[in-house]
Amino acid sequence: MKKYYLMAPGPTPVPPSVLLAMAQPMIHHRTAEYEGLFTEVRAGLKRLFQTTREVIPFVSSGTGSMEAAVVNTLSAGDTVLGLRAGKFGERWEEICRAYGVTVVPMAAPFGQTVSAETVAEALRSHPEARAVLMQHSESSTGVLHDVQGIAAATRGTPAILIVDAVSSLGIADLRLDEWGVDLVVAGSQKGLMLPPGLSFCALSEKAWGHVTASRLPRYYFDLAAEGKSVAKNEAHFTPAVSIMLGLREVLRMLDAEGLPNVFRRHERLARATRAGVEALGLELFAKASPSPALTAVVAPPGMNSEKVLAAYSASHNITIAGGQGEMKGRVFRLGHMGYVGDFDVITALSALEQVLHELGHPVDFGAAVRAAQKVFAERA
Amino acid sequence: MKKYYLMAPGPTPVPPSVLLAMAQPMIHHRTAEYEGLFTEVRAGLKRLFQTTREVIPFVSSGTGSMEAAVVNTLSAGDTVLGLRAGKFGERWEEICRAYGVTVVPMAAPFGQTVSAETVAEALRSHPEARAVLMQHSESSTGVLHDVQGIAAATRGTPAILIVDAVSSLGIADLRLDEWGVDLVVAGSQKGLMLPPGLSFCALSEKAWGHVTASRLPRYYFDLAAEGKSVAKNEAHFTPAVSIMLGLREVLRMLDAEGLPNVFRRHERLARATRAGVEALGLELFAKASPSPALTAVVAPPGMNSEKVLAAYSASHNITIAGGQGEMKGRVFRLGHMGYVGDFDVITALSALEQVLHELGHPVDFGAAVRAAQKVFAERA
Repeated sequence: MKKYYLMAPGPTPVPPSVLLAMAQPMIHHRTAEYEGLFTEVRAGLKRLFQTTREVIPFVSSGTGSMEAAVVNTLSAGDTVLGLRAGKFGERWEEICRAYGVTVVPMAAPFGQTVSAETVAEALRSHPEARAVLMQHSESSTGVLHDVQGIAAATRGTPAILIVDAVSSLGIADLRLDEWGVDLVVAGSQKGLMLPPGLSFCALSEKAWGHVTASRLPRYYFDLAAEGKSVAKNEAHFTPAVSIMLGLREVLRMLDAEGLPNVFRRHERLARATRAGVEALGLELFAKASPSPALTAVVAPPGMNSEKVLAAYSASHNITIAGGQGEMKGRVFRLGHMGYVGDFDVITALSALEQVLHELGHPVDFGAAVRAAQKVFAERA
Repeated sequence: MKKYYLMAPGPTPVPPSVLLAMAQPMIHHRTAEYEGLFTEVRAGLKRLFQTTREVIPFVSSGTGSMEAAVVNTLSAGDTVLGLRAGKFGERWEEICRAYGVTVVPMAAPFGQTVSAETVAEALRSHPEARAVLMQHSESSTGVLHDVQGIAAATRGTPAILIVDAVSSLGIADLRLDEWGVDLVVAGSQKGLMLPPGLSFCALSEKAWGHVTASRLPRYYFDLAAEGKSVAKNEAHFTPAVSIMLGLREVLRMLDAEGLPNVFRRHERLARATRAGVEALGLELFAKASPSPALTAVVAPPGMNSEKVLAAYSASHNITIAGGQGEMKGRVFRLGHMGYVGDFDVITALSALEQVLHELGHPVDFGAAVRAAQKVFAERA
């Protein structure tokens, strides 16, 4: 027997109580029971997205809601500005390209962030821009981008700010209404501790204005049609009933912990992970503003990072993640989002020490664990 | 305590073993374990769709795969022929309209079917038609349309036959390769006995040719990109891991029963249901070719069918379905698809007798039950 640990930056572990909630017999979505469920979920989602407006759920992975954001607010021939600082930034560009929307990239080297000043300047150079597209937490590099600053730069322009918060919702603070973010996209399988299958869009009034003006074709991902149904406390198409049952349980857990505490927990887990990694002499990939969701680590010189994940898996039955695209072979990524506590970080770091040793890298056993413990002790 | 029964035409009950399979701890989709799961699921889906080609899964409700069928095989300005004989026939038209595809309707009164000869004639009148769109089982009317005959009429023309099998897959025989069906769309929450959240597209070589020629924009529902990933035994975007775990269990159950037995079971349950309904003097809504998936029943003269479902729910905690669109208030619908056996039909009919009595309709108690029992006894 070798216990399995899921420590990748999504999908993330699902709490046992949530698994059980989803394992209850199927209910129909046109019943009083589902209406009660949806009423509670809608209220919980508003608190989670920190907005007074309705949050729109879709049955899809997070990419589906990214597409929904594009096809419901833009038109073919539009120009938008896009942060290009990681693989998911490139996904925005791919979606826009598929629909005839031109993306003016605001690039930073992977591992870096793009400043709000750069965005403000790009908006001045491109007064025709209809939107700014960005990630909050860029999972491929482990960087957290400055949503608040970029929202301030976007406000007062005709552009809306569209934020992919798939790997930051319920992990890092993101105040839709207060910061003036226009469209937030999220998924179920990261901070929300659910299986993949549900995604979300939350819109400001300014973003709903763009929906009215948008001329791109859509049917399955139709925000106006979904919004009408949500306002009636109904599902437009058949909803992912089992994951919704799990979502109610998750929202109760997040409410019980309190969002500020949820954010503090993730920040602390991330800090401990980084301290552990650096105590082993390894380099963090994120050069600025590391994400509380995951830690991307540069493999030691001469070591292919794919070997690190292979050893995590083969020797310890732990799933972590490698580098994506041009980062493949160079970095490995440790997730610490969602249903994660101190001793998961200890496990991940202890395993890292074993793995590096197995791969012939000199290791001072216990060094990473000790560094993390010191971070955890600070609170006491 | 009043036991809950889900007897609507989808979502349908999920077997306990499948609920438990889905309740196991989350696994990552880039692991050997998921690869093994996907290998088995791919093989099982081919048997289920009766095709040698790969079946493409999407994370969406069935409507998502309907959209995928349209946007991957057609172009704006194309003309297609569409069976219009129920609410889901109208959904094909809505999707086409959203993407600038013109639908020439081949209409039949709701409750009737459209003959293969009618389709053949329409194809002769419209040699420019790029596709024929139809439902196999039309859930809104309870009619099973003639896929085999229409496939024969379509073969040899430039048009492909696109079939919505959301409420027929694993319920009624549908031979993709043998009959020459070009594109079959299905969902997880009907005959597949799973929660909503997964949908499928299966394509013939002719349909893949249409994919190459198609010029409609798409990104999330991109069959070519998904097909490439499936061929590598991988997921393109994050898959609905928990429902895939359930799907493996369902495919094992269907294999153990044997597809011909699965179809016979549904046909028998449907026949017993119809016999019971008619024994109470009620009228079936399907005038021809009733579906084995569900039975649509016309409410007694002077009785609003919404009262029937309300009484099913309020008095007996049973969810059935009402009429959709223009059939609202006129019909109620009893599902008997998926995880359903003889005594579920007995329960539904026994409750129907109680409900009609409660609503003041004269009932010979036991008449519907007796008629169904006689059908069940035939086999013995």
